[in-house]
Amino acid sequence: MFGRFQYNDIVFSGEVFDDIVYPDPSFLHLEDEYPLSSLLILPPTRPTKIVCVGLNYADHAKELNMELPKNPILFLKPPSAALAHEGLINYPQMSDQVDYEAELAIVIGKQCRNISAADAFDYILGYTCFNDVTARDLQRADGQWTRAKSFDTFAPFGPFIVTPEELSQQNLSPGNLFVQCRVIRNENEEVRQSSSTSEFIFGIPELISFISSVMTLEIGDVIATGTPPGVGELLVGDVVEVEIEGIGILRNTVVSA
Amino acid sequence: MFGRFQYNDIVFSGEVFDDIVYPDPSFLHLEDEYPLSSLLILPPTRPTKIVCVGLNYADHAKELNMELPKNPILFLKPPSAALAHEGLINYPQMSDQVDYEAELAIVIGKQCRNISAADAFDYILGYTCFNDVTARDLQRADGQWTRAKSFDTFAPFGPFIVTPEELSQQNLSPGNLFVQCRVIRNENEEVRQSSSTSEFIFGIPELISFISSVMTLEIGDVIATGTPPGVGELLVGDVVEVEIEGIGILRNTVVSA
Repeated sequence: MFGRFQYNDIVFSGEVFDDIVYPDPSFLHLEDEYPLSSLLILPPTRPTKIVCVGLNYADHAKELNMELPKNPILFLKPPSAALAHEGLINYPQMSDQVDYEAELAIVIGKQCRNISAADAFDYILGYTCFNDVTARDLQRADGQWTRAKSFDTFAPFGPFIVTPEELSQQNLSPGNLFVQCRVIRNENEEVRQSSSTSEFIFGIPELISFISSVMTLEIGDVIATGTPPGVGELLVGDVVEVEIEGIGILRNTVVSA
Repeated sequence: MFGRFQYNDIVFSGEVFDDIVYPDPSFLHLEDEYPLSSLLILPPTRPTKIVCVGLNYADHAKELNMELPKNPILFLKPPSAALAHEGLINYPQMSDQVDYEAELAIVIGKQCRNISAADAFDYILGYTCFNDVTARDLQRADGQWTRAKSFDTFAPFGPFIVTPEELSQQNLSPGNLFVQCRVIRNENEEVRQSSSTSEFIFGIPELISFISSVMTLEIGDVIATGTPPGVGELLVGDVVEVEIEGIGILRNTVVSA
């Protein structure tokens, strides 16, 4: 498990183990270890792009009474939307309905293009939690989803990257992970989304193959794999948690912009 | 007028004057000047994002018999789609209809967020030519425009950046520039698009203000301002030229991927 961190003015990456962070030895002027609580957690990569997938859960398609899509529907979030674990989601003045969408994110480990599904796992650095925050009213108004999904802070991901090896060590497979979204409002916690990546319409290898047949993927790029049923609204003051089995909990608070 | 160049393995930026390139003095191990013809021209910036605007020409709206949009419709192209002047547009196997779209592009000069239209010109580094290459069949099939517009090589821009000062010295204003697209096929040159940025529905200050109210813009980010009437198809072997008055000519050749 590893992530990116800030200590005073120093930004570095490091391994996380039992709430201790071990900086990558390539970073100078750092101690050998830090308590996690002494560091600011940053988004675990600096993606050149964040590629998101529309409808990709069979149970969600059922809920919406929609036909299964023939190919993944793609959209992009700009890197400027990235937000770390515990970062604040800014509720934009432009919108009156901001929704959460809990998702598993794939982090790319090697530059790749035109990868076959059979080779896709060779290009995965690891997995993390993602919240595809969406101004639903603007999504409806525009038709195109970009504005609704591109506001600063609308791409929280983290807290850390879990490698494929670490997942296997837990006897977990990325295609069969429990995904949950919880909202804590006025001290009441409610489970809002609860599904499994086993409901994926397009599996992880198919997504990487499809996306890389369109665009070159770079190290650190993020692919958000779509959200299960139960999307709903966030209010200012809400705390929203995306939990993915074996990956972690991504927690963010909504504030007025 | 300035751009980015490659000489052997060295990538550098420099001023262009009368087909001579003067490298920025911050780059070491370079001569004081190079003939432009001895250098590889690169895309003039490395944007963290390329923000594009849908329908933004009144004459195009008329042609399509569409109502004028109430706000700009935004979409993104990934940085991996960037292509330089004289670079090759790869015709994707996935598509059977690839179109040109000539556009004026704004290059951002300073990080900015929530900029008023009145202040927008303070954040402009300059202007360049842009071709919003689009797989029209996939755009129609997906509904969302991202896949259709995100293929590698689908964001040619350049050749250079012309500063606002250089435009004024030519007695030109960015809101009143002639925009043309030409296609050379089998040695026949045809003008396909011919309009003026005076047809903009949303002017340059309004676009910067609107986009920066959604997402933080970074130095070198590119805003493509929409295309005039006359969009149409490209075939393998075509040479496509986007010419913008006072800015230059962006030329690319279409090849099979």
